[in-house]
Amino acid sequence: MDKEVVLSKIATRLRIHSVKMTTKAGSGHPTTCLSMADLIACLFFDEMRFNPQDPHDWANDEFVLSKGHAAPILWAAYAEAGIIPERSLMTLRKITSVLEGHPTPRMKWIKAATGSLGQGLSVGVGMAAAMKLGKSPGRVYVLQGDAECAEGSVWEACNTAHYLRLSNLCVVVDINRLGQSGETMHGHDIKAYERKFKAFGWDTISIDGHKIPEILKALQKARENKNPTAILARTIKGKGVSFVEDRNGWHGKPLKADEMKRALEELGPMPPVDSKKYVKKPRKSTTLQLKKRFNFKRTFYKEKVATRRAYGNALEKLGQVNEAIVALDGDVKNSTYAEDFFEAFPKRSFQSYIAEQNMVGMGLGMSAKGYIPFIATFSAFLVRAHDQIRMAAYSFSNIKFVGSHVGVSIGADGPSQMGLEDLAVFRPIPGCAVLYPSDGPSTEACVETLARHKGLSYLRTSRPAMPLLYSQDEKFPIGGSKVLKKSQKDVAAVIAAGITVYEALKAYEELKKEGISVKIIDAYSVQPIDKSGITREVEKSGKKVVVVEDHFSNGGLGDAVAMALSGKTEILHLAVEDLPHSGEPDELLDKYGINARHIKNAVKKLLRS
Amino acid sequence: MDKEVVLSKIATRLRIHSVKMTTKAGSGHPTTCLSMADLIACLFFDEMRFNPQDPHDWANDEFVLSKGHAAPILWAAYAEAGIIPERSLMTLRKITSVLEGHPTPRMKWIKAATGSLGQGLSVGVGMAAAMKLGKSPGRVYVLQGDAECAEGSVWEACNTAHYLRLSNLCVVVDINRLGQSGETMHGHDIKAYERKFKAFGWDTISIDGHKIPEILKALQKARENKNPTAILARTIKGKGVSFVEDRNGWHGKPLKADEMKRALEELGPMPPVDSKKYVKKPRKSTTLQLKKRFNFKRTFYKEKVATRRAYGNALEKLGQVNEAIVALDGDVKNSTYAEDFFEAFPKRSFQSYIAEQNMVGMGLGMSAKGYIPFIATFSAFLVRAHDQIRMAAYSFSNIKFVGSHVGVSIGADGPSQMGLEDLAVFRPIPGCAVLYPSDGPSTEACVETLARHKGLSYLRTSRPAMPLLYSQDEKFPIGGSKVLKKSQKDVAAVIAAGITVYEALKAYEELKKEGISVKIIDAYSVQPIDKSGITREVEKSGKKVVVVEDHFSNGGLGDAVAMALSGKTEILHLAVEDLPHSGEPDELLDKYGINARHIKNAVKKLLRS
Repeated sequence: MDKEVVLSKIATRLRIHSVKMTTKAGSGHPTTCLSMADLIACLFFDEMRFNPQDPHDWANDEFVLSKGHAAPILWAAYAEAGIIPERSLMTLRKITSVLEGHPTPRMKWIKAATGSLGQGLSVGVGMAAAMKLGKSPGRVYVLQGDAECAEGSVWEACNTAHYLRLSNLCVVVDINRLGQSGETMHGHDIKAYERKFKAFGWDTISIDGHKIPEILKALQKARENKNPTAILARTIKGKGVSFVEDRNGWHGKPLKADEMKRALEELGPMPPVDSKKYVKKPRKSTTLQLKKRFNFKRTFYKEKVATRRAYGNALEKLGQVNEAIVALDGDVKNSTYAEDFFEAFPKRSFQSYIAEQNMVGMGLGMSAKGYIPFIATFSAFLVRAHDQIRMAAYSFSNIKFVGSHVGVSIGADGPSQMGLEDLAVFRPIPGCAVLYPSDGPSTEACVETLARHKGLSYLRTSRPAMPLLYSQDEKFPIGGSKVLKKSQKDVAAVIAAGITVYEALKAYEELKKEGISVKIIDAYSVQPIDKSGITREVEKSGKKVVVVEDHFSNGGLGDAVAMALSGKTEILHLAVEDLPHSGEPDELLDKYGINARHIKNAVKKLLRS
Repeated sequence: MDKEVVLSKIATRLRIHSVKMTTKAGSGHPTTCLSMADLIACLFFDEMRFNPQDPHDWANDEFVLSKGHAAPILWAAYAEAGIIPERSLMTLRKITSVLEGHPTPRMKWIKAATGSLGQGLSVGVGMAAAMKLGKSPGRVYVLQGDAECAEGSVWEACNTAHYLRLSNLCVVVDINRLGQSGETMHGHDIKAYERKFKAFGWDTISIDGHKIPEILKALQKARENKNPTAILARTIKGKGVSFVEDRNGWHGKPLKADEMKRALEELGPMPPVDSKKYVKKPRKSTTLQLKKRFNFKRTFYKEKVATRRAYGNALEKLGQVNEAIVALDGDVKNSTYAEDFFEAFPKRSFQSYIAEQNMVGMGLGMSAKGYIPFIATFSAFLVRAHDQIRMAAYSFSNIKFVGSHVGVSIGADGPSQMGLEDLAVFRPIPGCAVLYPSDGPSTEACVETLARHKGLSYLRTSRPAMPLLYSQDEKFPIGGSKVLKKSQKDVAAVIAAGITVYEALKAYEELKKEGISVKIIDAYSVQPIDKSGITREVEKSGKKVVVVEDHFSNGGLGDAVAMALSGKTEILHLAVEDLPHSGEPDELLDKYGINARHIKNAVKKLLRS
């Protein structure tokens, strides 16, 4: 049978599945699926090469559905490819099914969760960069909606894709004119999209997204381009079902039973095609082989050092023993000290410029391909990518985030540069490990701990150089804490982390002079917090607790300790309560009530209570 | 004296100030200031019209320094304009000075804090839109760095500026080639910037940013354009000080004393010009007059309703009595129900398409000009603009954020669409009021409360329709809570909010059947939490507490209550502990342990302990 005929029959099968699935589920986005059925048929059953037996075959082409709400047709494509049973399509959106409302890696061919729009292209950029790095013959295809082109992260991704000359990357934009609540800004003005992609250095090919020969020709041409290619496909939302075609008000609405009946009549009987036969396998299956060791040689520190500086040292040494480590920077590598890794391993280093959203999205794509990205910038600016971080969690990513310049202790640059909400960003993420070291040795140990941890991690580093507290070989496991000062006479405990550990130790000395003995706990593991250890220690020291942190008062260490100790002990919480000001670090620690003086007063206040 | 000569002398004065200020402060970004001195001289002392006596003169032109790290030259310009004393420049970055390291509105001519890059243009778009709406004759000038053009939010802003045909907006890009850690992606390739701005519908003018006649001509031309205009100025970082000119490694470094001496020799003696004389005032001062009432007529609900639906009703009614209210939507107005306001008040409604970062940045600009923006989208997608929300706090903005579709109770769409970290985003912001209503009447009351609140606010709304709990005239003040069930025999208290209030009430009935009497508290004010009220109620009900919320377990209501009750009572916290799955709302509330069954079991567990 002629290829075009086959593909159009497969497209019809995909349309029929999409309509049935969403009506059965009682929710979903059938019209969004219908506009891209011809594109998906051509991609999955002629253009792409993948090994249906192994989603992790290193030679596979990768597909990212950026418009995640079109999940039904993606599930349908996997069923047609023989990867999942056709009957499973009727479990769409059920709590027992991996075929969720938007794609997640619970379905094992999905490597990145999508559903927050404008993120898929960044993931594709990361995958394409990782595949070039690991010499995969595969290509990356991203199917993107037109409405999501309004997201700035799309243009960050375009910038980087051109900068990295990712000729193995192709985005197909499904320009169906209609968004959720109305027409998109550009409607069917394909030229408007051409101008933008071209301006960002991409090759573009504009086609009718329902003409199979045009689609195949464009994909062929894209494969020959030296630049990343954008295929701009003019489509009709709801294509194939006359009464929803190009109609506003049909976004995210399944057809009712009678409407489905009419739709299926229009689409005709299920064409008898065995789509599996048309899946193209890679010419030769391969696997990615990388040396992955984690125990690197620690730096022997003789004098005070900033934790951000120690991070730079540790990352470079980790890179020497572990080929899976890649580093991403947002043009601050001389401040986060990722620059050491960049100098030592230029091939594994990715300058993302000042585009944090794409930096995180790229990291997600690299993690999806088996690399271990360390993404470092000012903690204040990591917040810029909060939505991408959120999606990285749903993608079960193995990304290590590093936020430097935390808190008011950075000083004179002022509030916009201070990370004061970063713990509140990372603590809520289920399974995310949040470590906050205070000195050089603890930082290097935390880097090893987080590198070994499979999943999202956050390392919080500080700007000022601080004295040494720990020995080179001390271990810092996730969920632990350290008791730095203790005695039988302790009447209270001070729980601190990072910079405030030093303030707590100063307060300890001053209180000691007054005959007051307190326990000092370094809660370096903010998430998970060492509930049992801290509870045990606190119960042995008067059940009076001061928590002091360089973070806004909600969402950080104080909240973690309050919940861990709920009902057990009184807590006096010292944290940044106001919008801070520029100033000298010591002035700010005092003004915002988190230095030794305030800790001392807090302890005394608790003793009076 | 000839205009060009005057302006170049003023530019020299600005350069001298910038060098001296940063050396005195011991930190800051002199080379960044030097590249834009000629641009600032032309803008402040020839092009712009502003009333030096009144930063809020409605006829003023507005200036936004997107590259906030160039604050020193901005302070210098205000000193030259006679707005602040010249001697105050030497207080740069001091804790006692309003001349902070990056601009904040503590200095009263600043309307939006900058310092997180790529946000100034969105602010400018919001100001320009507000000024068109309020018929101001003024124009908006944004000075933007080249490195920050990598931020996607810049292109979101460009899209919207063209869409709104903001001919009163002009961005001047200071293309000095060098970022913080190296050269920018495009270096001095001015054409690369031209292509991008043109593709996004802007007029562009490329100039030598050190040639005053070219600058003046470009600004003149921009004033005549029908489109927003981008002036692309090729400049030299460090211009005027030979040994730092165009040199990498000089970002954010003040000159040492001896280096400053050499620099000042090169710059020559302070030119004797009285810059004040060259400030151009508006032709006619005006003020913005808007009817601002807050007590709108409440809807009388007879049957169950979703809080998001009630929000839509309330916003439209508020709009009728308050002309300062504007609404922004990210193409989900038919889900958040902002659509009612959009239909009733099209002029005050701004479709931001799927570009949340620019939507929030625009809102910031509108708030800066005296409007009260209500910004609504899915709570999950508000997170996309976390960095802009952070900067809105430092801008002392009066924005009302509304996040719909919170928690697992949205059901089958799956995790990417569930707002499970939104409370952790808004709770840490000092002064931000966070209200989480449970029914129609409480939602309308909360809308009025938040509209009256001067500052950032967050309203959390839910997807499902729920029965009525409160009367039409019930008040919901910030910092309050409601006791829905209480008796003398209460042995425990259940604290809930939003959807979980209903689960708590179900559990109450079931426990009652078993002879167990519990108190039910609706903690609708999540931030600030009703510490005294909740403490009082809890101490009268067995000091045993169950907190149940449809949010990740860290950062939300549980943390707020744990800290408020620290040391007083035991807390059993029910919240979403895992990455959730698609499914039916009731299935999900059960699977993730936050429904009546789990509340009942939790109470019994507490009673056994």
